[in-house]
Amino acid sequence: MQSDRERAIFEAGIKLGALYHQWVGTPISQESAGSVESAIEKSVVLQPFVEEITVRLDRKQMKKNLFGYSELAGLMFDAEIVTRVNFTYCRARLAPQDGYPLMQVVECREITPVSDH
Amino acid sequence: MQSDRERAIFEAGIKLGALYHQWVGTPISQESAGSVESAIEKSVVLQPFVEEITVRLDRKQMKKNLFGYSELAGLMFDAEIVTRVNFTYCRARLAPQDGYPLMQVVECREITPVSDH
Amino acid sequence: MQSDRERAIFEAGIKLGALYHQWVGTPISQESAGSVESAIEKSVVLQPFVEEITVRLDRKQMKKNLFGYSELAGLMFDAEIVTRVNFTYCRARLAPQDGYPLMQVVECREITPVSDH
Amino acid sequence: MQSDRERAIFEAGIKLGALYHQWVGTPISQESAGSVESAIEKSVVLQPFVEEITVRLDRKQMKKNLFGYSELAGLMFDAEIVTRVNFTYCRARLAPQDGYPLMQVVECREITPVSDH
Repeated sequence: MQSDRERAIFEAGIKLGALYHQWVGTPISQESAGSVESAIEKSVVLQPFVEEITVRLDRKQMKKNLFGYSELAGLMFDAEIVTRVNFTYCRARLAPQDGYPLMQVVECREITPVSDH
Repeated sequence: MQSDRERAIFEAGIKLGALYHQWVGTPISQESAGSVESAIEKSVVLQPFVEEITVRLDRKQMKKNLFGYSELAGLMFDAEIVTRVNFTYCRARLAPQDGYPLMQVVECREITPVSDH
Repeated sequence: MQSDRERAIFEAGIKLGALYHQWVGTPISQESAGSVESAIEKSVVLQPFVEEITVRLDRKQMKKNLFGYSELAGLMFDAEIVTRVNFTYCRARLAPQDGYPLMQVVECREITPVSDH
Repeated sequence: MQSDRERAIFEAGIKLGALYHQWVGTPISQESAGSVESAIEKSVVLQPFVEEITVRLDRKQMKKNLFGYSELAGLMFDAEIVTRVNFTYCRARLAPQDGYPLMQVVECREITPVSDH
C-alpha cells in the first residue's frame, strides 16, 4: 500500500510524463505559444488528482525554421503541477537542467484538517 | 515535377495526417474542447502553404470516463484545411465516414490573376 | 527531500504517463503488435531509473476498421515497469480497470545490501 | 474529382505527416533505432494505399543526453514511401534539407496494364 504522499507523487509523475510526450513536436511560434500553454493547462487539469497546473513555454527558444515557425521541444517547457490525494499535496516541476528536461518533485505537504469544534 | 495543384494536394495531406497524430490522445472535455480547437488551428496555420484551417471537435462523443473526462479520438475531428501553391487552392477535409476518420480532397481551384491593364 | 522509495515511485509515474501518450494513436494490427511492443520496451528502458519494462498489447481489441487495421488505444495496454533508485525498487502497472487505463503502483521493495564480512 | 495520380499524392502526404508527428519525441539510442524503424514501417504499411515504406533514422544525430539516451527528432528521419491508387504509383520522401525536415513528392508513374491478347 502507498501513503497519500506517495500516491500524490506518483500522480504528479504520470501527468508530467504524459504532457511532455503528448505535446512535443507541435508546430509553434512566439505568437501561438500562449494558445498552446492554455490548451495544455486545460487538458492536464481534467485528469484525476490535479489541483493546479501552470505551463510556460520559453519563447526565446522558438527560433524560426526555413518556413518561419518552430516546433515544441522538451527544453522549452517550464511546467509546475500540484497534485492532491486526500489531505496531501505534491508540487512537481518540469524544467531544463543541464540541457535535460528534468522532472522533479519540489515539495509535498500535508494539510491538517481543522477540527470542527 | 508536380503541378501547383498537385503540390497543394500533397501539402493538404501532410497537414491533415500531422494534426491527427499530434493531437489524438489529448485529455479533453466539452468545456476544454474550444481551447484545444483554437490551439490546433493556431498550430496548423503556422505551417507552409496553409491558407485556412478550421477544426471542430464533436462534443457529443466526449463521454466521461471513470474520472470525468474524455480523450481526443480520431472520430471526433471535423477539420477543413485550405492550402495554396501559387494561384492554386486546395480544400481538404478530415471527418468521420462509415466509422473511419476519412481524409479527402474536397476541391481544388485555380484563381486567374487579374491582368493589370 | 524525497526518499528513494518516493523517487522510484515518481519515476515510474513519469514513464507510464510518457509511454501512453507517445504511442496512443499508432496504426496497429494483430500482426504488427509484436513489433510495436518491442519498440516501446526498447524505448522505455533507455530512460533513467528503469530496470525492467514489459508491454503487452491486447490483440483482441484490435478490430479492423474500414481499411483493415486498428489504432493503438489506451485500453489495449498492459504494461509493467520496475524502477530503481539506489536500493529501492518500485513496480507499477498500466492496465484497464473498469473501462479506464489505470496506472498504479503495485509494490515497492528495499533490497538490503549484503554486508561484506 | 481527383485523378489517381492526385489521390496517390494526397495519400503520400497524409502518411508522411502522420508518421512524423506520431513518432517524434520517442526516446531512442543507436542501439534501439533499428527496432523503432521496424515498428514505424510495420505501422505505416497497414494504412490504405501504401505499397512500400522504408525508414532510416540517422544514428549520427543520436547524441547522448545527461542520462545517456536521445530523443527522436524530425531531422533524424529519412523515409521513403510509395503509394498506389489503381495503376498510378507515387514516391515521396521525408528527409532533411537546409535544416528542415522536408516532405516532397519524388516521382509519380502510371503503369500501363498489359492487354490480355
